[in-house]
Amino acid sequence: MKRVHFVILTLLVVDNFSLAQPTALRADANRIEQRIMKLAELGKTENGNMRVAFSDADVKGREYIVGLMREAGLSVRVDAAGNIIGRRDGSDPALPPILIGSHIDCVPNGGNYDGDVGVLGSIEAAQVLHENNIEMKHPLEVIIFSNEEGGLIGSRGLIGELSTAALDVVSHSGKTVREGIRFIGGNPDKLVEAARKKGEYKAFIELHIEQGGILDEKKINIGVVEGIVGINWWNVTVEGFANHAGTTPMNKRSDALLAAARFVVAVNKVVKSIPGNQVGTVGRISAEPGAPNVIPGRVVASLELRDLSAEVIQGLFRRIQQEVAVIERETGTVFTFSPIEPSSVPAPTDPRMRTIIAESAHELGLSSQVMPSGAGHDAQDIARIAPTGMIFVPSVGGISHSPKEFTKPEDMANGANVLLQTILKIDSGRLE
Amino acid sequence: MKRVHFVILTLLVVDNFSLAQPTALRADANRIEQRIMKLAELGKTENGNMRVAFSDADVKGREYIVGLMREAGLSVRVDAAGNIIGRRDGSDPALPPILIGSHIDCVPNGGNYDGDVGVLGSIEAAQVLHENNIEMKHPLEVIIFSNEEGGLIGSRGLIGELSTAALDVVSHSGKTVREGIRFIGGNPDKLVEAARKKGEYKAFIELHIEQGGILDEKKINIGVVEGIVGINWWNVTVEGFANHAGTTPMNKRSDALLAAARFVVAVNKVVKSIPGNQVGTVGRISAEPGAPNVIPGRVVASLELRDLSAEVIQGLFRRIQQEVAVIERETGTVFTFSPIEPSSVPAPTDPRMRTIIAESAHELGLSSQVMPSGAGHDAQDIARIAPTGMIFVPSVGGISHSPKEFTKPEDMANGANVLLQTILKIDSGRLE
Repeated sequence: MKRVHFVILTLLVVDNFSLAQPTALRADANRIEQRIMKLAELGKTENGNMRVAFSDADVKGREYIVGLMREAGLSVRVDAAGNIIGRRDGSDPALPPILIGSHIDCVPNGGNYDGDVGVLGSIEAAQVLHENNIEMKHPLEVIIFSNEEGGLIGSRGLIGELSTAALDVVSHSGKTVREGIRFIGGNPDKLVEAARKKGEYKAFIELHIEQGGILDEKKINIGVVEGIVGINWWNVTVEGFANHAGTTPMNKRSDALLAAARFVVAVNKVVKSIPGNQVGTVGRISAEPGAPNVIPGRVVASLELRDLSAEVIQGLFRRIQQEVAVIERETGTVFTFSPIEPSSVPAPTDPRMRTIIAESAHELGLSSQVMPSGAGHDAQDIARIAPTGMIFVPSVGGISHSPKEFTKPEDMANGANVLLQTILKIDSGRLE
Repeated sequence: MKRVHFVILTLLVVDNFSLAQPTALRADANRIEQRIMKLAELGKTENGNMRVAFSDADVKGREYIVGLMREAGLSVRVDAAGNIIGRRDGSDPALPPILIGSHIDCVPNGGNYDGDVGVLGSIEAAQVLHENNIEMKHPLEVIIFSNEEGGLIGSRGLIGELSTAALDVVSHSGKTVREGIRFIGGNPDKLVEAARKKGEYKAFIELHIEQGGILDEKKINIGVVEGIVGINWWNVTVEGFANHAGTTPMNKRSDALLAAARFVVAVNKVVKSIPGNQVGTVGRISAEPGAPNVIPGRVVASLELRDLSAEVIQGLFRRIQQEVAVIERETGTVFTFSPIEPSSVPAPTDPRMRTIIAESAHELGLSSQVMPSGAGHDAQDIARIAPTGMIFVPSVGGISHSPKEFTKPEDMANGANVLLQTILKIDSGRLE
């Protein structure tokens, strides 16, 4: 009896030892996948997910997430900006928390992976730590940012940069941001209570789908984000002269649409003329009066330029303006460029964070590539108050903001594993 | 006493003799101008005239015109297609009438000269004949076509080509064409009664403002219209692939707007590549989804080509399609061209009518130029059943379909005088 007992105890010790080895901790791909599918049901429509921020579906999604956070051993609160924050204490009360997380709100007719993968991956990391009784020195906080798709509202609240004007914006839910924050349990009158300062977090790590097709195409497991590109938007107005399309000879026209068309072609040419990852897009256009038999007298269009370097963006814009000067002369039109929101400056990630993420991927046997994020993320705000890193996982076909968005369960688990190992490396002093 | 009396009688006789010489008959520029101003009041708004067909203002305008026609000695009726027809009998009941006229309905936010000049000029011609007791051999009919701007409705009714589909179209008034015709006193159920056949009219002459800037720029008094251009319209759809403007590299895009922009440039290039008066216009464009941060996946645009030769139009279209094939290959997009209404075949005027109009102008001491009509007119329909001519007068700055439309009183009177002399030449056998 005694001997048998001894053997059993030994086995238990060995087993516990194995679980307690942090490098051996692994995310559960099936659990993440099941939760993705469950979350996908909330807001589901025939034309994609409508779980836009501040909608009833958003509230249902948040309730579901809060339940998962509690299951992962986190103590949950909602801050004044409507962010859900789940906390796991560390062993040293003097240390600042390590922050991880993303968002669950989506664009209208969106998909089920943008944001959700980061949220469920973060909860998975916390739950694996919890289930394995891993004690960290630093507290760990999992955050679900409010209304990411409507202008990074939650993360702007967290860094104390949510303006009155931003609160007045009408969100996709039909509610203003102010009404919406109140609707999900925040308090727009006490935003100051949500604001955090530099140094209050040890680090921030956001896991996210790439939303582009580079990792998928190159069969690379992990993207180590070198920064979130700056985005500049302009309203472009082209003034020509509206006239009868039948009676105005070709050489007597000031055709605003012809000029705008040459502008669209010029933007593409200029943006592609230099090496790099910069992108430029004209996504919106309308011609007035807009009849087949009237020469357009006025065109309104948009211009968007993105790059990791603000200088590159400004250089591209200057060259586009030079091209436009020629178009104006040759078509008898006048262009006006008005910078509009949301402009955002490039947000490089912390180089030390990139190294830790790449190392974590390598140790897990995963391939990785350093890459910019062409899309905006809450991480670009948090980068202003904490060392920030971002982990990308492949997005099949690069599709995003679409019901066709898809990321494989094993890729989501890979991301959660890299996140978990990155947390543990930071906790063990790799950022000092 | 007696001697004095005699002198007075002689003077009267001389005066009467002078008035009765048809070549000496003259339109009254002031009267036309006053009537233009009065008609302009009906439908007047801050943003131009809203006397669209079948509106209350249209009915008021028609009542005003009917009064003027009666003042000019015409017996007035409204036909089943809603055309107002004022008739002056001729001395030979066996002869077919000479038809003159135009329209008083305008485009939304239109001007006060398009159509109106032809209507008031025609009434002026009839009134001068009436006031001077000139007896013609042929009857003279003045016609005010219903709903010209909404698809040449009245003239299509007059040639028996008004389809059920055309009657179902909702006009700018909000009423269907069917309801509208009834509203102005026509009878859409008895359109057959309005239809006239080849040979029922001796000739048709339409006086109209040029709606282009050629006469005004060259300081020429009269345009002798060689024909009304054919018009072809296409709906152009460009299918690309909508994607995230931040995460999709430039070389991975199927940007429907970039392709459409190259198409707009190509249309302009092809149309200008051959000598002639042909015109081509892209007047309408929209990009979907139409957000600054989404690469357009779909663009819908219009294409219009006009020329006096249907072969030239088809040739231009073929060359545009060749250019488009290259654009499709290079941008990974697919174009679809769907022909749409209103297409109209070129309508040459009668060469004898051109000669008579040019001679009339010359005899009046007015300069003239043969030119195409780039705009559509009721005359293009009537040309199918009667020898047809068109007289253009200058339109200041070539502006039309705009509240800024303007034609000088002396130019309107010149047009009425050329019209009057043309009528008299036809009446005296010049068409035989």
